[in-house]
Amino acid sequence: MSFETQATIATCGGKLLKLAHDAKTTSCQMKFNLFVPPGASSSKPAPVLFYLSGLTCTGDNCAEKGFFQKTAAKKGIAVVYPDTSPRGLGIAGEDDAYDFGSGAGFYVDATKEPYNKGYNMYSYITDELPTTLFSEFKELDGNKVSITGHSMGGHGALTLFLKNPGKYRSVSAFAPITNPSKCPWGEKAFKGYFGEDESTWLAHDATELISKYSGDTDILIDIGTGDNFYKQGQLLPENFEKAAKAAGKDVTVRYQPDYDHSYYFISTFADDHVEHAAKYLLS
Amino acid sequence: MSFETQATIATCGGKLLKLAHDAKTTSCQMKFNLFVPPGASSSKPAPVLFYLSGLTCTGDNCAEKGFFQKTAAKKGIAVVYPDTSPRGLGIAGEDDAYDFGSGAGFYVDATKEPYNKGYNMYSYITDELPTTLFSEFKELDGNKVSITGHSMGGHGALTLFLKNPGKYRSVSAFAPITNPSKCPWGEKAFKGYFGEDESTWLAHDATELISKYSGDTDILIDIGTGDNFYKQGQLLPENFEKAAKAAGKDVTVRYQPDYDHSYYFISTFADDHVEHAAKYLLS
Repeated sequence: MSFETQATIATCGGKLLKLAHDAKTTSCQMKFNLFVPPGASSSKPAPVLFYLSGLTCTGDNCAEKGFFQKTAAKKGIAVVYPDTSPRGLGIAGEDDAYDFGSGAGFYVDATKEPYNKGYNMYSYITDELPTTLFSEFKELDGNKVSITGHSMGGHGALTLFLKNPGKYRSVSAFAPITNPSKCPWGEKAFKGYFGEDESTWLAHDATELISKYSGDTDILIDIGTGDNFYKQGQLLPENFEKAAKAAGKDVTVRYQPDYDHSYYFISTFADDHVEHAAKYLLS
Repeated sequence: MSFETQATIATCGGKLLKLAHDAKTTSCQMKFNLFVPPGASSSKPAPVLFYLSGLTCTGDNCAEKGFFQKTAAKKGIAVVYPDTSPRGLGIAGEDDAYDFGSGAGFYVDATKEPYNKGYNMYSYITDELPTTLFSEFKELDGNKVSITGHSMGGHGALTLFLKNPGKYRSVSAFAPITNPSKCPWGEKAFKGYFGEDESTWLAHDATELISKYSGDTDILIDIGTGDNFYKQGQLLPENFEKAAKAAGKDVTVRYQPDYDHSYYFISTFADDHVEHAAKYLLS
């Protein structure tokens, strides 16, 4: 077994496994949570929804406060809650800021020293984690995978979906960073992980990617109008909507009155996002 | 206004208010959370469910992780999440243990020095908080109140219900301490708040109280069989069941296989407890 099971917690009729494994891509031990719905077995494997978390989070926050499990249990969908970065690589300064380094991997493979030593969350999430997971957990159906996420994790969900046609059956996002090349969070992260050449950033920017995406889309996005990060121009959903419209892609952005950026917002609409994934995972 | 509104958070179609007020019974500022369901108004006030938290918690934990709001919103029920003790009274040692003093008020009025200076959570929860709240929030119906709680808060819910016939329309509990005179948590707390004379403890012990309760009951209790505190003899639901049976009272204890003592357990069954309260609050 590649995974160490650190806890098994009964919840919503299924179980939440707290797992850890030594990951090659990130050069460290990675922890994550896996919700296995009731009834999943090797003869009836459950489709899988990846939930990518936002800045400062680990895989624990949404497992505790996002409340995807109840509807996922009803639908028979597993949920994977990965961490947001490598931990403890010993890179000078990696723990200094909330929006860069640890807790802020931005779901990219860094190309710039010293972060290229392990800040490879793109490869970890798209390749190493699912490959290892699906080879060992036969109660999961690795051929039926969707993705969602919040804030930085919404950026991750959108870009991983758009960069890998066919890999994910659907995508949705809560308050995603949709145009990171044009917002302070994204600029800081991309400078740190890729360097000053902005042309290298575009391959990781959902607004750029949707313009060139060749397939059909049905992307659900929720954003609260009371979200301070939306108001500060960190999320820029209007740019994403405009690019999607110009490219003839189907994107639904729901501006939810008064909702903020917190898990109170995520948990309110979590059911809708599980239902959105279920349309594609269960068909 | 007696209350300071420290935050207003949109959630589940309603709003969560983070409130603070100077309480006389506890001689300090008390914080709590109030979930107001959509549609509540002075002309259509919402019935109210009090949720009493367990050891170490504040009113925040269950508001974030217990997930009562979605079903409460659907049913049009408000939820009040009080704190578990006074804070910062400056009593020597009050912050030293997780199971006594701050975070561990046990929903009693202490009679022993020095805790009788402000550890009066019984009066606070049954009288001062609701009186103040219902006089100022006309969107709440103070004539329709139920109560529930977890662990120490389950003890609180059961004893407050049994000591005040007619005050609460219904009661339920998650993994409650049901026989505190006979378990280590309760013995420590009652010694500290009341002194060594065990006869003074019995008025705050649900197993004693149900034997003498004159009204009808319909008490719902959930307990996880994987709950370490249940296994350690802190909860003793069998004693409560036996006393209830002998007294001819209706108590349903559901032993939920594998569930632990955490919010993963509470959130799994929260809907059932809101439904239980709704039967009495909405009739």
